[in-house]
Amino acid sequence: MNVEILAVGTELLLGQIVNTNATEIARRLADRGFTHRYQAVVGDNRDRMASAIAAAAQRSDALIITGGIGPTQDDITREVVADVAGVDLVYDDHYASMMRERWTALGRSFPESNLRQAYRPEGAVVVPNDKGSAPGFRVMVDGCWVFALPGVPAEMLVMLEQEVLPFLQAESGNDRSVVVSRVIRSWGLPEAGVGELLADIFETSENPTVAFLASSGEIKVRLTAGAATESDARALIAPVEAVVRERLAPHVFGADDETIEAVLGDLLRERSWTIGTAESATAGMIAARLTSVPGASEIYRGSIAAYATDVKTSLLGVPAATIDEHGVVSEATALAMARGASEALAVDVAVAVTGSAGPSELEVPTGTLCIAVVSPETTIVRTIRLPGDRERVRTYGTTAALHITRIALVGQ
Amino acid sequence: MNVEILAVGTELLLGQIVNTNATEIARRLADRGFTHRYQAVVGDNRDRMASAIAAAAQRSDALIITGGIGPTQDDITREVVADVAGVDLVYDDHYASMMRERWTALGRSFPESNLRQAYRPEGAVVVPNDKGSAPGFRVMVDGCWVFALPGVPAEMLVMLEQEVLPFLQAESGNDRSVVVSRVIRSWGLPEAGVGELLADIFETSENPTVAFLASSGEIKVRLTAGAATESDARALIAPVEAVVRERLAPHVFGADDETIEAVLGDLLRERSWTIGTAESATAGMIAARLTSVPGASEIYRGSIAAYATDVKTSLLGVPAATIDEHGVVSEATALAMARGASEALAVDVAVAVTGSAGPSELEVPTGTLCIAVVSPETTIVRTIRLPGDRERVRTYGTTAALHITRIALVGQ
Repeated sequence: MNVEILAVGTELLLGQIVNTNATEIARRLADRGFTHRYQAVVGDNRDRMASAIAAAAQRSDALIITGGIGPTQDDITREVVADVAGVDLVYDDHYASMMRERWTALGRSFPESNLRQAYRPEGAVVVPNDKGSAPGFRVMVDGCWVFALPGVPAEMLVMLEQEVLPFLQAESGNDRSVVVSRVIRSWGLPEAGVGELLADIFETSENPTVAFLASSGEIKVRLTAGAATESDARALIAPVEAVVRERLAPHVFGADDETIEAVLGDLLRERSWTIGTAESATAGMIAARLTSVPGASEIYRGSIAAYATDVKTSLLGVPAATIDEHGVVSEATALAMARGASEALAVDVAVAVTGSAGPSELEVPTGTLCIAVVSPETTIVRTIRLPGDRERVRTYGTTAALHITRIALVGQ
Repeated sequence: MNVEILAVGTELLLGQIVNTNATEIARRLADRGFTHRYQAVVGDNRDRMASAIAAAAQRSDALIITGGIGPTQDDITREVVADVAGVDLVYDDHYASMMRERWTALGRSFPESNLRQAYRPEGAVVVPNDKGSAPGFRVMVDGCWVFALPGVPAEMLVMLEQEVLPFLQAESGNDRSVVVSRVIRSWGLPEAGVGELLADIFETSENPTVAFLASSGEIKVRLTAGAATESDARALIAPVEAVVRERLAPHVFGADDETIEAVLGDLLRERSWTIGTAESATAGMIAARLTSVPGASEIYRGSIAAYATDVKTSLLGVPAATIDEHGVVSEATALAMARGASEALAVDVAVAVTGSAGPSELEVPTGTLCIAVVSPETTIVRTIRLPGDRERVRTYGTTAALHITRIALVGQ
C-alpha cells in the first residue's frame, strides 16, 4: 500500500517551524511496511492544496494530510478535500453540541468560530481527537483514502497511532507488516570505497535494501527489510549483514546505536582498564565524547588539555628537547604526551593528540594530526591529514583518535 | 520569483532524518522576499525524481534540489536532471584531476567511484563546494533554474548563501534585493520572559520582523529587514535593536556571530589574561568551546578534566578534607578546583565545574552543577540546577560556565 504525506501550513514554507510531523509519520509507515514515496508541503491556499491532493490521490492508496483543520479562517483543509472529492460539506449537529458542552463544562464561553470544526466532507468518517478540539476525518477520494489530521504533533501522533495506522493495516492486509533496519558502522574507508566494496549488493538486494550514510569519517551501511514478523525481517537481513561485515572487516566497529565511544567503553570495561587523554588541537573533545556515555566514571579518569607548549612540559612531562628536536606536532611529542598522561592521570590507556587545526599555520600543514595511544599491551602512533576547516579537522580528528584507540585495544 | 525545494533521499522517506534543509532554505527564501509555495521529498528513484523535477520546472522559476550528488550508486540527481533537461552528461576532466590531486596531496589512494562527481548535465554551471567533495551545479530546465546541492547541511548552506541566493537575487531584481538579519544574543532570561519583554515589538514590527530562537539556554532575538540597499535595511533595524538591547540589558552579551566563547576571548585579550579550566561533569566541553575560536592559543593555555575524585586531589590539589566535608559536588570543591587549575596551568582566569549530569544518582540531585570562576580581580561561585538528560545538562552547563566567566570579567 502506497501512502503519501501532505503537510499544510504557511509557517512551514516560511521556515518558521520544522516539518517533524512528516518524519514521525514516515518512520511509523516504514516500521509497519507501508510504501512511502512522496512528501509534500503547501501553504494554506485553496488551489495548491487541491492540486496536491488530487495528484496524491491519483498515484497512491492513501494520503495523510496534516494541518488546516483548526477553527480559524485559514484552516481550509475540510473545504478543499470536499471540493476535490466532489462532495458537499455537511454539518455535524451532534459534534457541535458536544463541543459546546465541553467548553461550558470548563466554564468558558464558547467561541462560535469553533463551529467551523463541526463541518466535514459528506461521507467522511470522524477520526476522534482526544487531545484537542479539532476532529480529524477520513474520506475516499478517487480510490485513495484521504486522512485529515491536525498539525499539532501531540494530537496528530495519537490519532495516527490509534486510528489511522490500524485502519490502513486492516485495509492493506500486506505481508510486510514489520520493517526492521540494521545499521553496520565502519571507520577507515572512504564512502566511495565502501560503495565499491558493496556495489553488487547495493544493486541487487531488494529486501533488505542497502543505503550508505557518512558522518564525521564514519560510514554506516543501513539494511532495511520488511516481512510478516520481526524475526522474518531479521532473517532476511542476517545473511546480507554477514557479507557486509566480511567485505568491510576490519573496519566494522559496531551496529545500530553502538557509537565508537560506547564500544570503547565496553572494551575497556571487559579488560578492567581505565582511560585518560592528553589533548592539544582537540582540547577536551575526546574527553567530552568518552564521558558522553552514561557510566563513564567506571572507565574514564581524567584528561589534560595541554594547549600551550609549556603545559605539555609542566603537566605531561614532555621533554623540552623532544619538542625542540621533533616539533610540537610530531609523533615523538604525541607519544610523550600519551606516556605523560598515563602517568599523571594513573590510567591504563592514554590517547594523545597534537596537531594543527588551522586557520593559522604551524610548522606542519593545517589538518595534520599526530595521534598516539599507549596501553598495557601496545603502543600505536599515527599521523593523519584531514581536509576542511578548523571545526571539521577537530571533529574528524576526535573521531579518528577514538577509532585508533579501539584499534590499539583489539588489534587490526 | 517562485522558488521550490525538492529534497532527495530515501532516509527522509524512512523517517530516519528530519528535513531541516527545507526549513533552512525556506527561511532564507522568506528573508529575501522570494515566493516559496511547494516543498517535496522523494527517494533515490529515477522516475519519481524525474516527475517531481518536471512538475516543479513547469510551475516555478527556480528549483533547489538537495541530496543525491555524492559518489555512490544511489546518488542519481546528476543523471535525472540531465534526463529531464534532455541533455547528455558531460565529464569534467579539469574537475576530475583536481579531485585526484586533492586526494593525492592528502596521501590517500583515490577511489575511482569518486569520478561520478565529475559528471554534470551538458550546459550546467558548477556551484563550487568548498566544504566537501561533491560539487553542485545549476542548469536551465524548461525555463526554470534547477540547482543541485548536496544533502549535507553544512555544505549545502554555504553553497546556498554564497552562490544560489545571490544568483537568484540578481536574476529576479526584486526591490528587497538585500535582506539583513541582526541577531541580538542574551543569556540569563527564559524564552517566555524575553517574549513578554518584547511582546509589543513582536506583534507590530513588520520590517524588520522579529523572531525568537532558543539554544542551550541562550535566547536570540533575530531582526530581519528587507530593503533596496544594505544601509537602508540596517537603518530599519537600528532603532528596533536599540529598544531590544535596552529592554534585555544586562543579559545581552553579543550580536550576530559573536558566540559567548568569542566574546570571552576578546575580553581576555583586552586584559592580556589567559584562561584554563578544571572540569568534572563537563569533562573537556568548556575547553573544546574556548578553543573552537581561531586564535585561541593567545588566551587559552590548557585544562584538567578531573573526573575521578582522586584526580581532583592529585592534579588540582583539592584537599581531600574539602571533598569529605562538603561533597564532590559542592561550591567549596568547585572553588578549590578553580584555584588548583589557576596554579597548575599558570593561568589568570580559571573556571571550574563539578556536578551531577545523570543518569546515575550522586549525593546531589541530577542536574546540579557548581561553577566557580577565579580571576585576578574577583571570585564567583554559583550553584545551578538544570533539567533534562545527561547530554542536555552537560551542554547547558557548559554554556552557563562560559557566561558566568563573562560575568566575572565584566561584572553584572
